[in-house]
Amino acid sequence: MERKTLLTECPDSKGLIAQITNICYKHQLNIVRNTEYVDPVTGQFYMRTVLEGVFNDTTLLFDLDRALPTGSRRSLLSEGAKRVVVLVTREAHCLGDILMKVFDGSLALDIAAIVGNYAELSALADKFAIPYHHISHHGVSRTDHEQQILATIAPYQPDYLVLAKFMRILSADFVAHYRNRIINIHHSFLPAFIGANPYQQAFERGVKIIGATAHFVNEQLDEGPIIEQMVRTVDHNFSAADMAKAGRDVEKAALSRALQLVVENRVLVHGNKTVVL
Amino acid sequence: MERKTLLTECPDSKGLIAQITNICYKHQLNIVRNTEYVDPVTGQFYMRTVLEGVFNDTTLLFDLDRALPTGSRRSLLSEGAKRVVVLVTREAHCLGDILMKVFDGSLALDIAAIVGNYAELSALADKFAIPYHHISHHGVSRTDHEQQILATIAPYQPDYLVLAKFMRILSADFVAHYRNRIINIHHSFLPAFIGANPYQQAFERGVKIIGATAHFVNEQLDEGPIIEQMVRTVDHNFSAADMAKAGRDVEKAALSRALQLVVENRVLVHGNKTVVL
Amino acid sequence: MERKTLLTECPDSKGLIAQITNICYKHQLNIVRNTEYVDPVTGQFYMRTVLEGVFNDTTLLFDLDRALPTGSRRSLLSEGAKRVVVLVTREAHCLGDILMKVFDGSLALDIAAIVGNYAELSALADKFAIPYHHISHHGVSRTDHEQQILATIAPYQPDYLVLAKFMRILSADFVAHYRNRIINIHHSFLPAFIGANPYQQAFERGVKIIGATAHFVNEQLDEGPIIEQMVRTVDHNFSAADMAKAGRDVEKAALSRALQLVVENRVLVHGNKTVVL
Amino acid sequence: MERKTLLTECPDSKGLIAQITNICYKHQLNIVRNTEYVDPVTGQFYMRTVLEGVFNDTTLLFDLDRALPTGSRRSLLSEGAKRVVVLVTREAHCLGDILMKVFDGSLALDIAAIVGNYAELSALADKFAIPYHHISHHGVSRTDHEQQILATIAPYQPDYLVLAKFMRILSADFVAHYRNRIINIHHSFLPAFIGANPYQQAFERGVKIIGATAHFVNEQLDEGPIIEQMVRTVDHNFSAADMAKAGRDVEKAALSRALQLVVENRVLVHGNKTVVL
Repeated sequence: MERKTLLTECPDSKGLIAQITNICYKHQLNIVRNTEYVDPVTGQFYMRTVLEGVFNDTTLLFDLDRALPTGSRRSLLSEGAKRVVVLVTREAHCLGDILMKVFDGSLALDIAAIVGNYAELSALADKFAIPYHHISHHGVSRTDHEQQILATIAPYQPDYLVLAKFMRILSADFVAHYRNRIINIHHSFLPAFIGANPYQQAFERGVKIIGATAHFVNEQLDEGPIIEQMVRTVDHNFSAADMAKAGRDVEKAALSRALQLVVENRVLVHGNKTVVL
Repeated sequence: MERKTLLTECPDSKGLIAQITNICYKHQLNIVRNTEYVDPVTGQFYMRTVLEGVFNDTTLLFDLDRALPTGSRRSLLSEGAKRVVVLVTREAHCLGDILMKVFDGSLALDIAAIVGNYAELSALADKFAIPYHHISHHGVSRTDHEQQILATIAPYQPDYLVLAKFMRILSADFVAHYRNRIINIHHSFLPAFIGANPYQQAFERGVKIIGATAHFVNEQLDEGPIIEQMVRTVDHNFSAADMAKAGRDVEKAALSRALQLVVENRVLVHGNKTVVL
Repeated sequence: MERKTLLTECPDSKGLIAQITNICYKHQLNIVRNTEYVDPVTGQFYMRTVLEGVFNDTTLLFDLDRALPTGSRRSLLSEGAKRVVVLVTREAHCLGDILMKVFDGSLALDIAAIVGNYAELSALADKFAIPYHHISHHGVSRTDHEQQILATIAPYQPDYLVLAKFMRILSADFVAHYRNRIINIHHSFLPAFIGANPYQQAFERGVKIIGATAHFVNEQLDEGPIIEQMVRTVDHNFSAADMAKAGRDVEKAALSRALQLVVENRVLVHGNKTVVL
Repeated sequence: MERKTLLTECPDSKGLIAQITNICYKHQLNIVRNTEYVDPVTGQFYMRTVLEGVFNDTTLLFDLDRALPTGSRRSLLSEGAKRVVVLVTREAHCLGDILMKVFDGSLALDIAAIVGNYAELSALADKFAIPYHHISHHGVSRTDHEQQILATIAPYQPDYLVLAKFMRILSADFVAHYRNRIINIHHSFLPAFIGANPYQQAFERGVKIIGATAHFVNEQLDEGPIIEQMVRTVDHNFSAADMAKAGRDVEKAALSRALQLVVENRVLVHGNKTVVL
């Protein structure tokens, strides 16, 4: 007996849940948890169905495809670790947090490799015996740099790329290779303080709360679908540096909670938003 | 076209969602939102289905009853205000908060009447033109006092009783009249600081967080199913009185959020717990 | 025996705390609580000293003024209710929340009057027997409208103006009459979603957290010193209207917490920021 | 120029702040930040003074001791890393979190050694090149076990012991060696769910919030002064195991925030409470 998650997305119509769950029933699958959402504006239907039983993926998906309307997307996802490649620059906190959570069993990732545009974090990768590829951006064009990264990542066949404080902007071309599969942590409570040095901006504005945003990366910088946001309070005692330090905690927390949601097959992309079922 | 919520509870079995949603489909009802939960320990199935369409309640419920296993409970609930009677003692904050939220349209309650064992809060009831019944407990037995309250409440036929800082313990007999329909706000983060004067207890223990618990009342004092809990931070600067004051804010917030969940037909009782779908 | 709060602000120099507290000691005043902050960037010194004893305000302030460097500001504030005039438009929730908190004793304000540019909320003011001035902005110039408001407010001699969802932008000239004494609640987590319809913006961006900002009003719209910010989580189920509704709760909470800080004489303005001691 | 923190505790009397800050001024020390608290119940005075300048510790403390009343305690603490020994059993998450925060520079601890009553976590210690002492409790009396641990720890001369999920109860005798210097993370929101298996208890009670408590250890199990408490929401979907997993996140967060407060010299013990200045 196995457990899998069926994610379905299609234009809404009457009887959809009945059709899908009838097929599951016909396949002798038990529904452990079912959550559904219809967007009232777009009329798009989203459903997450956790199934238990003996799976014949091919016939199940065949039956579903015959029943669902044109333009539907469905995926049948196994439980268990997602395969990722992590991209980093020089800051250790997000990578370290992920590595430790994988180590202590609280985050089901299979970290296939780490790619850094600086060499600093290779020592951290080594502690956990994970391949580290140092691909410097110095003296190469952005296009060439991205091609090197893509070529390095490809053999690992990751489910997702995780940008754990990777401080390079990715081109639309790069992003297209991993559409809705690149997860970034942005060091602000988007859309506040877009761009560089958000903590300095937050300090100058005298805010009482700072935050971080985990989101899928799309072609528009800082505009991809938000998966998770977290915040914490600050006060006048915080210098810009203190805010950045406090922010690192929030960044770690938001990124790892987003990754947890992705691991649990709970995140569907919906235009430039997410539906978290 | 109307919108209603179907709440279903029964022992789990394969095909349940398909059966229920098939019936909805047969009745030409559109499923706006569907959330389901199966308790892995007890194997009990819970589902909340928000339906839209033209309802024939009788035939819909008849079809459901025929399809569902023995021991099922289902209810088809309209949208809109719940009818309540609020019981109070002398503290104004929870009652005032509810009255104001009903007044400004943010909480869909129809407050039929207020019952107080003191007269103090009748002035507040008057401001909002709600009948206030002062039923003193002085010089009467608990049984007689409760009988007077029950007799006063009965004609209003409330969906729920709300204990908004009603400081009298209700007998099992009283509770039986409104099984899982009495909502209390308890002035602590249950199960911490059970009993009287929880803020004094919290102060003496030097806690850094205080809380409040909204729960259904059952026969066991402080033991009914928890609907909502909220907390806030405190520090060494808080005296016991300051904690009580801060606690009043949390009490209001937890009670009104619990009431909001009840208004949205999202709370199912599950033994001594709740399932909030 | 009385309790008063001394707020001091001046350029930092060695021995300042000693000088100030020596003077308090000389005046036989007991220091109940003392909190101090020096801005490391500007070198400005801020101190809040809660004093207990028998006060001779004139000689105490005289001694302080002699001791403190040029450019110092200090105020000796009594405990107890602040006198305010509340400005509103048509939304009841913030005004209602303040009225109820004053009523139940949890917020020490003396609400001298309410000014509305619409008539709607006069019924709410009446419930609490507070004078309501309807000063419509229709058919009058902004300057004339503001002059009418100023003339109406002046006799009440308020300590603060509270903009409880007052949806008119105030001119620099108006603001100058109540410098750092106008408290506004902004319906977004500033600086995100500046301007009109922030909840629609938040909805379209698909954020997972919304917030509100209580701030002093200065000449720059949405740019005044932030006193308090609060947030709450939302998810894909929230329509723009749901977000606005959830936002109203946060607006109330942030505004009333900011007012509480002001009542406790804890807020000092520091350029376009606040220091909350 | 150096920065040090002076912590002072003594019975309150008029002029104390003036006396202390006069001495600082006389020593040409600048006060960067000063926070003071007087317990209104016990009349005990607590002050934290961050000083900057050239220190002559001996004369400064001599002057203070002469000025302060009998029964005073004061300490002059350097900035910078605290020296700790961490005690663990088999769970990696708290130890891992601390190690990673020290590694990435966000927590200023000097982890001198790790002591475990099981061998499991030695591999984790090795990654960070920290001595790991496996001192099994099997086949030895509690007294002997504790003596072995004490003997092992002593040469490291730690400022604090950190119990990072050390699942053994320490005797009063052990605790006496490190009075108010042993920091424990308790896996519940104390005083709720005291004792073993709090997550099972929380699950059975159907709570909507779980928490963790970081506290100093005293002779009474689960009764020492609370430094920090943190919580997170849970719901009916959480099994006892899910709660335990969610709880591990809160445990890490509460412990590391408590350690951060200790590192910043902000925590004073006050009977069975803490004052965090």
